[in-house]
Amino acid sequence: MKLRRLFVACAVVLAGIALQSCCCGGSQISGENYEFKDGMIVFDEPERAPGQESMLAFAADPIPVVRVGFIGLGGRGPGAVQRFTHIEGVEIKGLCDIEPDRVEKSQGILEKAGMPRAEGYTGREGYKALCEREDVDLIYICTDWVNHVPIALYAMEHGKHVAIEVPAATSVEECWQLVDTSERTRRHCMMLENCCYDFFELTALNMAQHNLFGEVLHVEGAYIHNLADFWDVYYDNWRLDYNQKHRGDVYATHGLGPVCQVLNIHRGNRMNYLVCMDTKSVVGLECAQKKMGSTEFANGDHTHTLIRTELGQTIEIQHNVYTPRPYNRLYQITGSKGFANKYPISGLTFAPGQLSADVHPDAPNTNAHGFMPKELYDATMEYYKHPIHREIEEKARQVGGHGGMDFVLDFRLFYCLQNGLPLDQDVYDAAEWSCIGELSATSANHNSMPVKFPDFTRGDWNKIQGYKHAVKE
Amino acid sequence: MKLRRLFVACAVVLAGIALQSCCCGGSQISGENYEFKDGMIVFDEPERAPGQESMLAFAADPIPVVRVGFIGLGGRGPGAVQRFTHIEGVEIKGLCDIEPDRVEKSQGILEKAGMPRAEGYTGREGYKALCEREDVDLIYICTDWVNHVPIALYAMEHGKHVAIEVPAATSVEECWQLVDTSERTRRHCMMLENCCYDFFELTALNMAQHNLFGEVLHVEGAYIHNLADFWDVYYDNWRLDYNQKHRGDVYATHGLGPVCQVLNIHRGNRMNYLVCMDTKSVVGLECAQKKMGSTEFANGDHTHTLIRTELGQTIEIQHNVYTPRPYNRLYQITGSKGFANKYPISGLTFAPGQLSADVHPDAPNTNAHGFMPKELYDATMEYYKHPIHREIEEKARQVGGHGGMDFVLDFRLFYCLQNGLPLDQDVYDAAEWSCIGELSATSANHNSMPVKFPDFTRGDWNKIQGYKHAVKE
Repeated sequence: MKLRRLFVACAVVLAGIALQSCCCGGSQISGENYEFKDGMIVFDEPERAPGQESMLAFAADPIPVVRVGFIGLGGRGPGAVQRFTHIEGVEIKGLCDIEPDRVEKSQGILEKAGMPRAEGYTGREGYKALCEREDVDLIYICTDWVNHVPIALYAMEHGKHVAIEVPAATSVEECWQLVDTSERTRRHCMMLENCCYDFFELTALNMAQHNLFGEVLHVEGAYIHNLADFWDVYYDNWRLDYNQKHRGDVYATHGLGPVCQVLNIHRGNRMNYLVCMDTKSVVGLECAQKKMGSTEFANGDHTHTLIRTELGQTIEIQHNVYTPRPYNRLYQITGSKGFANKYPISGLTFAPGQLSADVHPDAPNTNAHGFMPKELYDATMEYYKHPIHREIEEKARQVGGHGGMDFVLDFRLFYCLQNGLPLDQDVYDAAEWSCIGELSATSANHNSMPVKFPDFTRGDWNKIQGYKHAVKE
Repeated sequence: MKLRRLFVACAVVLAGIALQSCCCGGSQISGENYEFKDGMIVFDEPERAPGQESMLAFAADPIPVVRVGFIGLGGRGPGAVQRFTHIEGVEIKGLCDIEPDRVEKSQGILEKAGMPRAEGYTGREGYKALCEREDVDLIYICTDWVNHVPIALYAMEHGKHVAIEVPAATSVEECWQLVDTSERTRRHCMMLENCCYDFFELTALNMAQHNLFGEVLHVEGAYIHNLADFWDVYYDNWRLDYNQKHRGDVYATHGLGPVCQVLNIHRGNRMNYLVCMDTKSVVGLECAQKKMGSTEFANGDHTHTLIRTELGQTIEIQHNVYTPRPYNRLYQITGSKGFANKYPISGLTFAPGQLSADVHPDAPNTNAHGFMPKELYDATMEYYKHPIHREIEEKARQVGGHGGMDFVLDFRLFYCLQNGLPLDQDVYDAAEWSCIGELSATSANHNSMPVKFPDFTRGDWNKIQGYKHAVKE
C-alpha cells in the first residue's frame, strides 16, 4: 500500500514536470482545437463521416434555368441582383434581408429591368423560409461574414447549391462544416472570390498555364485598402466590430485566391504551413474608440502571412484596411523564367527566349532585368488574354461590378451550373482560402510560430493535376 | 532499499517522458549556439568581458587628416579609391589585394588624380603588414564577405578604425567578435551600408524624424537583383559559392539598414524576433551546376524575413539574386498618418493635414487613398530634403558611385572622423544588420520557427532616444 502510494506520488510529481516541459520551454502552446507537434501548431482534422464523399470535380446535373434566392441585400447584394438581370437563363425567385426597405430597393432593380418581382423575405430568420422553397436552385449569400456559414449550411441541408461572399467562413471549424455538409448533401458550395476573374490576374494565370514563368517559385497577394471613409457602410459597424475582436488576416481571399489557382492548390499541390506577424493596432483602435468606444483592438494595423507549399514555393499575403495607403492587392508572380506584377504598376519581365515572335517581333529578346516596354507589354497581354475574357470581357466591362470582374464571376457560375460542369471554385478552395483567418491569428498569438494547414480534401489534394476552368465539350 | 529503487526507476521513466516532450513534439530544435526557449529559438549571449565598455555614441579624438589603407581592390575597392581622391583631408597610405595587378590598377587612379602612389601590399596575408603600419588611421575593407571579420579584428587589434563593406559579418559569432573587439580596443567599426544615404531613403528618414508618417508601423526593404549576368565578376566565384553553402537572407543590409534608422533600432527600440521562409532553389542551383558543378544549393531563390520590434512594429526583408525581375530594394514606410514607397515607383501618401501649406498650397489637403500628384510630390521631396543632401548632393552626383550615395557615405565617414564625432553606423548596427544571415537560416531550417535577436548592446538599446546624424557644434 505504502509502496503504491509513493509510486503514485512521484508519478504525479514527474508527470507535472513532463507537462511543463511539453509547452516548449515555458510558453503555453495549446488550444481547444490544436496541439504543438513536430515543431508546429497542428489543428485537429476530423475523419470523413460515413456516407460522405469527396466533392472534388463534382458536377451537378445541368440546370438550364437557374432559380435564385438572394440573402443579404446591403453592400454587395443589390449589385449582384443588378448583374443577374444581364444573364440569360436566370430566374430570381426570392429576395431576403433583415431590413424590408433593402428588399424593396432590390425589387426596384428587377422592375427597372422589366423582370417580375420576387418573393420578399425579411427579419433575422427570413432566410429560412427562402431556403425551404422547392423552386430555388441556388442561394446567393451576401450577408455579413458571421452569417455566411449558418445560412449556407441551412441552404445545403434544404437541397440548394450555395454561393457565398468572401470570406466563406470565419474559423477552421466553420470551414469543416462547409466541407462536410457539401460532401454529405452533394450540393455545390462556391465562394464568390471575384478577384480570380480580374483582367490582369486571369491573363497572368493563362501565362502561367503556358509555362511562361518557368517554374513558379513565389507569389504575392494582399488586401491593402484604407477603409477610413467606409466603415459606416457596414450595417451596425459589423466589420469594424469583427476586426476589433479578431487578430490575423481576416480578409485574405482577394489576395490568396488568384495566386492559389496559379499554384494549383489541391490540384497537385497544397499549402503546408504558414507564419503570421502583425503590427500593433494604432489606427484601428483609434477608429474603434471613436465609433464603438472600444478600449482595445485585436486586429493589427498591418498583418503579414507567409505560406510554404508542398512543392517548395512561397506565398505572401498582406492585410491592412486602416492606414493611409493607395489601394493595393499586390498580385505578383515570381518564376524561374519570368515575373508579373500588378500593383502599383502592371509589368512583365521574362528571360530571353520565353516569348515567341508570334507575340511581337521583339518578344524573343526580352530584358531579364527590367519591365517590358509598353508596346511589348500590351502585345503580350493581348496575345495571352484568357479565353473567358475573349468571350465575355466586353459585356463584363459594360455591366461593371469592380470594373467587370464581378460579372465574369457570375457569368462563369451560371455557365457551369447551366451546363452541368464543376464550378471554378469548389468547397475546398472556400475552406483553404477562408481558414487563413484563424490559422494566422493562432500564429500571431504565439510569436509567429508555424501553423500547419488542415487538409480539407482529406488526402485527395494530389488526385487532380493542374487547375482548370471547365468548358463544355 | 526496494522502495528507493522503485522510486528511482519510476523517476527515470517519467523523466524520460519529460525529456521527450521538451523537444517540441518530436522535432529536434537545438544547435551548437542556440536553444529552444519560451517558444522561440534563442542564441547564446556572451557576457561582456571585464575591461570592455559600450561603444554606444563613441567618439574618437578628431583626426584632421585621415590616413587610409585599402584592403580588397576587386569589385568595390577601386571605386572607393576613386571617390577618396575627391575628399579633403585624406591620405591614402596603402593599397592591398591578393592580386598585384589590381593594386597597380588602383595606383593608376591615384596617379591620374595627381596624388602620390601608396605602398602596395599583395598576397593573402598582405593585409597584415598594412594593418601593422604606425601611420594609418583607418582600414577600409572591400574584400569578399568571409574575409571581412578576420581583417577587421586584426586591424582593430593594431589600433586602426575599420570600415567594412556589407555584410560586415557572416555569423552571429562573428558579430560578437566585432562588438567585443571594438569595445575592448575602443576603435570604430563601421559597416559601409551605402543605401542609408540614397536620396529617397534619406529624405524619407527626414520626414519620419519630423513625424510626417505619424507612428511608423511597418517598413520594408529588399535586395532583389538578378545577378545572372554578374556572377563572373566575383573572384573565384566566391559569391555564388557562399550562397551555395548558406541558406537564409545572406545579403540583408541594403534593405534593412535604412529602415532600421527609421525605427531607431538600439536608440530606444530593438528587433525582438524574426521568422524566415524561402523557396526551393531552382535558378541558383542551375547556375551553380553550370559554373561549379554543384549538385545542391542551400540558398533559396527567394527568401522572406519578417521581424517584430520591441515597439510592436514589423519589418519585412526580401532577398532574391536569381530570377528575372527588375531591380528592387522596396524601401517602404507605412505609418499611422502616411506612406512612402520607393520601388518600382516612388510615391508618397499622407492623411489630410499632415503637411503644412509651407510645403505647397495643396499640401494640407492630401488624399489618404492614393499617391500624391507629381507636382506636390516634388515639392514635398524638396521641402524635406535632408541637410546632408543639401550640403553634398550636387558634388555626390558628380563624383558618382551608385548615383552618388557611395560618395555621401564616404563624405559622412570622413566628416565624423575629422571632427571627432560618433559615426552614423556603429558596431551594433553592423552586428544587428549582419546577424540576419544566420538567424534567418536557422528559422528557415526549422520550418520558419521564430528566432530571438541577440542584444549586441547588452542592455543599452534603450539608453539613446532616436537615431541622429552627428553634426559639429
